Amino acid sequence: MSAILQNVSTSLSASTSTFVGHNNLKVIKPSHVSMAGRMSAVVKCVASPSAEKTAYKTNVARNENLAKLQAGYLFPEIARRRNAHIAKNPDAKVISLGIGDTTEPIPEVITSAMSKRSEVLSTVAGYSGYGAEQGEQKLRAAIASTYYAGLGIEENDIFVSDGAKSDISRLQVLFGSNVTMAVQDPSYPAYVDSSVILGQTGLFQKDVEKYANIEYMRCTPENGFFPDLSTVRRTDIIFFCSPNNPTGSAASREQLTKLVQFAKENGSIIVYDSAYAMYVSDDSPRSIFEIPGAKEVSLEVSSFSKYAGFTGVRLGWTAIPKELHYSDGFPVAKDFNRIVCTCFNGASNIAQAGGLACVSPEGIKAMHEVVGFYKENTAIIVDTFNSLGFKVYGGKNAPYVWVHFPGRSSWDVFSEILEKTHVVTTPGSGFGPGGEGFVRVSAFGHRENVIEACRRFKELYK
Amino acid sequence: MSAILQNVSTSLSASTSTFVGHNNLKVIKPSHVSMAGRMSAVVKCVASPSAEKTAYKTNVARNENLAKLQAGYLFPEIARRRNAHIAKNPDAKVISLGIGDTTEPIPEVITSAMSKRSEVLSTVAGYSGYGAEQGEQKLRAAIASTYYAGLGIEENDIFVSDGAKSDISRLQVLFGSNVTMAVQDPSYPAYVDSSVILGQTGLFQKDVEKYANIEYMRCTPENGFFPDLSTVRRTDIIFFCSPNNPTGSAASREQLTKLVQFAKENGSIIVYDSAYAMYVSDDSPRSIFEIPGAKEVSLEVSSFSKYAGFTGVRLGWTAIPKELHYSDGFPVAKDFNRIVCTCFNGASNIAQAGGLACVSPEGIKAMHEVVGFYKENTAIIVDTFNSLGFKVYGGKNAPYVWVHFPGRSSWDVFSEILEKTHVVTTPGSGFGPGGEGFVRVSAFGHRENVIEACRRFKELYK
Repeated sequence: MSAILQNVSTSLSASTSTFVGHNNLKVIKPSHVSMAGRMSAVVKCVASPSAEKTAYKTNVARNENLAKLQAGYLFPEIARRRNAHIAKNPDAKVISLGIGDTTEPIPEVITSAMSKRSEVLSTVAGYSGYGAEQGEQKLRAAIASTYYAGLGIEENDIFVSDGAKSDISRLQVLFGSNVTMAVQDPSYPAYVDSSVILGQTGLFQKDVEKYANIEYMRCTPENGFFPDLSTVRRTDIIFFCSPNNPTGSAASREQLTKLVQFAKENGSIIVYDSAYAMYVSDDSPRSIFEIPGAKEVSLEVSSFSKYAGFTGVRLGWTAIPKELHYSDGFPVAKDFNRIVCTCFNGASNIAQAGGLACVSPEGIKAMHEVVGFYKENTAIIVDTFNSLGFKVYGGKNAPYVWVHFPGRSSWDVFSEILEKTHVVTTPGSGFGPGGEGFVRVSAFGHRENVIEACRRFKELYK
Repeated sequence: MSAILQNVSTSLSASTSTFVGHNNLKVIKPSHVSMAGRMSAVVKCVASPSAEKTAYKTNVARNENLAKLQAGYLFPEIARRRNAHIAKNPDAKVISLGIGDTTEPIPEVITSAMSKRSEVLSTVAGYSGYGAEQGEQKLRAAIASTYYAGLGIEENDIFVSDGAKSDISRLQVLFGSNVTMAVQDPSYPAYVDSSVILGQTGLFQKDVEKYANIEYMRCTPENGFFPDLSTVRRTDIIFFCSPNNPTGSAASREQLTKLVQFAKENGSIIVYDSAYAMYVSDDSPRSIFEIPGAKEVSLEVSSFSKYAGFTGVRLGWTAIPKELHYSDGFPVAKDFNRIVCTCFNGASNIAQAGGLACVSPEGIKAMHEVVGFYKENTAIIVDTFNSLGFKVYGGKNAPYVWVHFPGRSSWDVFSEILEKTHVVTTPGSGFGPGGEGFVRVSAFGHRENVIEACRRFKELYK
């Protein structure tokens, strides 16, 4: 029961958007501070501007790009609906397989390193102040040798960060307002939102559910979740996530070779998100840099969040090859270094101590165990939907299962599952119009919750 | 000796810029990873674009705003000169009173909270994943009641961050490219640099050492380090730091009342940086919100860095009153919430546990002891320069001493001090043209180093 509540609580926190509706949620316990935090932030933010007409206004114009963002955004909308459901069914044991938040403890070999680093900060010998904005050299070196051995990525190409979401935003600041971008459709919403905020896009087009001036690269079962590049317009930047969130699909070596070739022909830069690389089970590449020539057209963003349960600890990295240049020959890494030094002051030294433990031999083993645990969850979910006759994608190389409900609205299916099984999933259309007709089921969850959720799925769809 | 080396090492890390020159530094020890990190980042970044003419280039244009930034930037330039000095004088016991990096251990009451939080993350009961992007509610509440009691700032107005530098950059993203801004001259370089990166400014004007389209508000001994607002052009945003970095001057209640009035008349938004508020000894305001009406025209950025030695742990906050609105009546906090949720995923939960300990009764006492220690250093430095007949400013309400060398170039004085005393300071002109003729001496340092530095100053200027 406590675990279930914890799921409910933590699942509120991973949204890339803001407007969580006010609610009457009754399961908040004192320990659930993050939920409480989220909930009250709300009260402030749902205040309608019109209600404050008499208040003093500055003469500063609101940033028009922020006004373009859609208010009815994915994760808050899910939270709203779930909370309404809980209010209506206060005794329901709600299970969240919605947002991709980790649930398993961090391996002890990693937490003990962070604990020790914390302790020595109270000693004269162990204290350290500002670290390098790019991260501690030992960690940069260990990330390079762990994830990019033999790929020509060296320690100085690694920029340690407080997580992939922050780095995606810093990359948008790096590129600025005048670039064009492409995303997989469906895709992780932060790519598009940060692009809108930086002013790279036009307005949201309600009829097609897309922002103007973004190239949406449709990824469907028909094309093996890899876009038909012959129909893709040239853009400056191509965001590409593999293994993919939300489809769970990993691009093959052949597909990524085509992508790199496409980028090279167009002179584009691929921002490759490899946050789920350790979930790859087959011989799909773990890094874009496994593809020959990729270093001239790609950079890579990654994270310890889903490997070590670092969603709350916050640690990731971006790898930018020396070979990546702007059209005037200026190295991209040099400008990103400037961004990191001006807009960021390095990841927490305690989190970095944890990161160093992650990439120690013991830590790597422990991370593989965490990943293995979630992949067992994935297998349970995949088997369940397969046994019910659904077409199921993803799962094999990712902690996400992408279930097809042909001809149905994602939101309708979401509601049906929530109402009838008290399980929270994520409607595919929330990741872009290409996700319509799908539901994403996350494998992050305690085992007993995953089994119980699957039992309920079987009851609903038998 | 080890303490001295540590100073040298850590003083490299707080720059807001990038280009640290290559060097032959011989004092690097294995434990000084942050310096090693910085040093090798360099090798990559000093590669001149012209040397890479034959390399593949993408067709992505370099962000023109990044090209506007000046390469010969303050802190890297200092590092370059210091390193050259060390190379020339390998046996010199160099002391850094340059960059404002803390040196004293973090109080045990705070580190033990972080250590415990680290440990419980390896337990099922204690594990937590994504937290609220705005920070844990308990911490938001404690910050509000500790720093804003009775000022009408509530827990939901507090956005916990990974430090003030990151928040300044997120605020620039919030405001976007079309706003105009003013800064104190001299001021902390991150305000100007982040403004340049976001495209709010014109080119750097070499003749006046200013970026076009930024209003530099001159702060000198003649005006009590408070700008003559009758000569200040209206801007959308006014960055204002008090107690000030680098001048060490704290604005009085009367002065801040004028500033708020000025902002109100112009409909401007004040971004008030109160990162040194706990250093205030007299009755100068600790927060802009002590000024009646300030909440309608101000937000405030702050940090635990200089209170608890959190420069490496990374924790700060931004307070945005509900009363602050754009010209269309839209609440500024609501858009900032969206920025925080899209471009950030919350500060490290371990750092937040430390923050909560900081604002416990024991933690507040411990922070005051840390602040008190550095203020004793300040008094030693102030007395030294006073005894030598210099005009000395700051120090009383800040950890910075601003020493006047009328008619001399800041860089010349910096070099003279470095060459003759092996002490690293910061040339005032690096903080803007208004800093010319001054040198900033930081009070962050171990006591024996501060005393030794002062002994050398006395020898040089007796």
